[in-house]
Amino acid sequence: MSTYLTILGFNSAIPTINSSPTAQLLEMEERMFLIDCGEGTQVQLRKAKARFSKLNHIFISHLHGDHCFGLPGLIASFRLLGRTTPLHVYGPKGIKKMLETIFTITETHRGFEIVYHELDKKVSEKIYEDKRLEVFTIPLDHRIYCNGYLFKEKPKERHLNMAAISEYPEIEICDYQNLRNGKDFVCEDGTTIPNAELTTDPKPSVSYAFCSDTRYKEDIIPLIKNVDVLYHESTFLHELKEMADYTGHTTAQEAATIAKKAEVGKLIMGHFSNRYDDLTVMTNEARQTFPNSYLPKALECIKL
Amino acid sequence: MSTYLTILGFNSAIPTINSSPTAQLLEMEERMFLIDCGEGTQVQLRKAKARFSKLNHIFISHLHGDHCFGLPGLIASFRLLGRTTPLHVYGPKGIKKMLETIFTITETHRGFEIVYHELDKKVSEKIYEDKRLEVFTIPLDHRIYCNGYLFKEKPKERHLNMAAISEYPEIEICDYQNLRNGKDFVCEDGTTIPNAELTTDPKPSVSYAFCSDTRYKEDIIPLIKNVDVLYHESTFLHELKEMADYTGHTTAQEAATIAKKAEVGKLIMGHFSNRYDDLTVMTNEARQTFPNSYLPKALECIKL
Repeated sequence: MSTYLTILGFNSAIPTINSSPTAQLLEMEERMFLIDCGEGTQVQLRKAKARFSKLNHIFISHLHGDHCFGLPGLIASFRLLGRTTPLHVYGPKGIKKMLETIFTITETHRGFEIVYHELDKKVSEKIYEDKRLEVFTIPLDHRIYCNGYLFKEKPKERHLNMAAISEYPEIEICDYQNLRNGKDFVCEDGTTIPNAELTTDPKPSVSYAFCSDTRYKEDIIPLIKNVDVLYHESTFLHELKEMADYTGHTTAQEAATIAKKAEVGKLIMGHFSNRYDDLTVMTNEARQTFPNSYLPKALECIKL
Repeated sequence: MSTYLTILGFNSAIPTINSSPTAQLLEMEERMFLIDCGEGTQVQLRKAKARFSKLNHIFISHLHGDHCFGLPGLIASFRLLGRTTPLHVYGPKGIKKMLETIFTITETHRGFEIVYHELDKKVSEKIYEDKRLEVFTIPLDHRIYCNGYLFKEKPKERHLNMAAISEYPEIEICDYQNLRNGKDFVCEDGTTIPNAELTTDPKPSVSYAFCSDTRYKEDIIPLIKNVDVLYHESTFLHELKEMADYTGHTTAQEAATIAKKAEVGKLIMGHFSNRYDDLTVMTNEARQTFPNSYLPKALECIKL
């Protein structure tokens, strides 16, 4: 299964006619994760032809409006569409009070449970795990409590090399799982057949780190080391470094520095200030430090 | 000055790619009024090229999400755009608690005052007045407390007929206001010059009634009698009358009946259920009862 990231919105603060506030849809190991949910995200999800019914986990980085004001409408639509499956919402402490106050006053009745996972720790923690993948928080440094999220596929099982296996009649079906797990095969006479002879490498496990909004923060580098793809906010050009620090944001050059030091595969940029009409200035600056810096297009679906 | 109504959104419940939930912009006597504010309204206002800085009064009919989930984002954008002018928000009791809870948790600081006008009366009341116009509530019958709004220009001053006035040297500039107000002129010798000889009729005063969401409710007819334009929700065709009653909505035929009985100039329909792909079925049904029933287009600006 491939992993896909759809950029539902990547501009900062004020929605415009052509660009939406932060929201991303990550499809990994057949799970569908929504990351942030600015106003209008439900319409962006429709444009991306996402199946609402497959969306069971929403991760909110922080409670500024451009990252969460789309949540009440999306959840209200879930109800109107007849949802019954529980919905897991991960986000800063306060998210439950905000949503439940809205739903009470607007009499938004639900036919499904919302399971809130409220976060308040300042160190990274594992907040989701199933048999195929894990999600960890990446504590960030913004004006308000904020986490990035690291999505990591677990190591995959090795592929059986059936041609090689058939050479050894002693190997039975009940031994296959051990082979998939990487174990050597020990024959009755005590000889060992190395696993590498009987299996081939699995597809590499994919990892994706989402980091928005934050000041330049080197602490995150060990957490996101070697991820395949890093999304890192880059609100300003470096000439506005002071403004970036003051408002709790990162410059394009700084985002690229994080990408370079963390040796990630690819940097996706975003959360651009509305002052920039031509966004290629952002990648031009970043590529001087980290050549594989990428400017996403609205609703682009990126294969990880 | 002409009066314009821009239909920012007119579909019900779930926003889709091509249609937005309820929101309208009324420009009357140089004032700008926003009526309802579903999710995405701020982007619709941008598409309509509305000047955010001129918008000082927002009227919310009821606190269902498709009529108010665009408010937090719009107000947050006002702040980011540097607004300092007070904003008046009219809506059901509870609107203040909802918005203030959201703004506190999301740390949406404001550089301007929000003046809340919370409504809970079940009879019509005047809620706004200035020298040129008045706004009244229209109590509706929905699943939740809900008001429509009636916007009425006050009678305008008569126009001076300067050619006629110049025939009477006794009439001085200080008499003009009395003439504009419709008074006859009494000469020193006691003879009366009728006002109609000295002035011409003013432009007629325009009135607009907004009614959404509601069951069929004949009580509103005296309130909206003879308005120039009535917007009345018409969620379903009449074959789904039972569904309309159950969900607190009106059928196209019923909306037309209200328009006919109230002898309004024009009926604008809206709040259509998503089940109808071809919306001309709504006007086809309504026109059998009230021929001047109108299906608005998205972002259409209608001169009243």
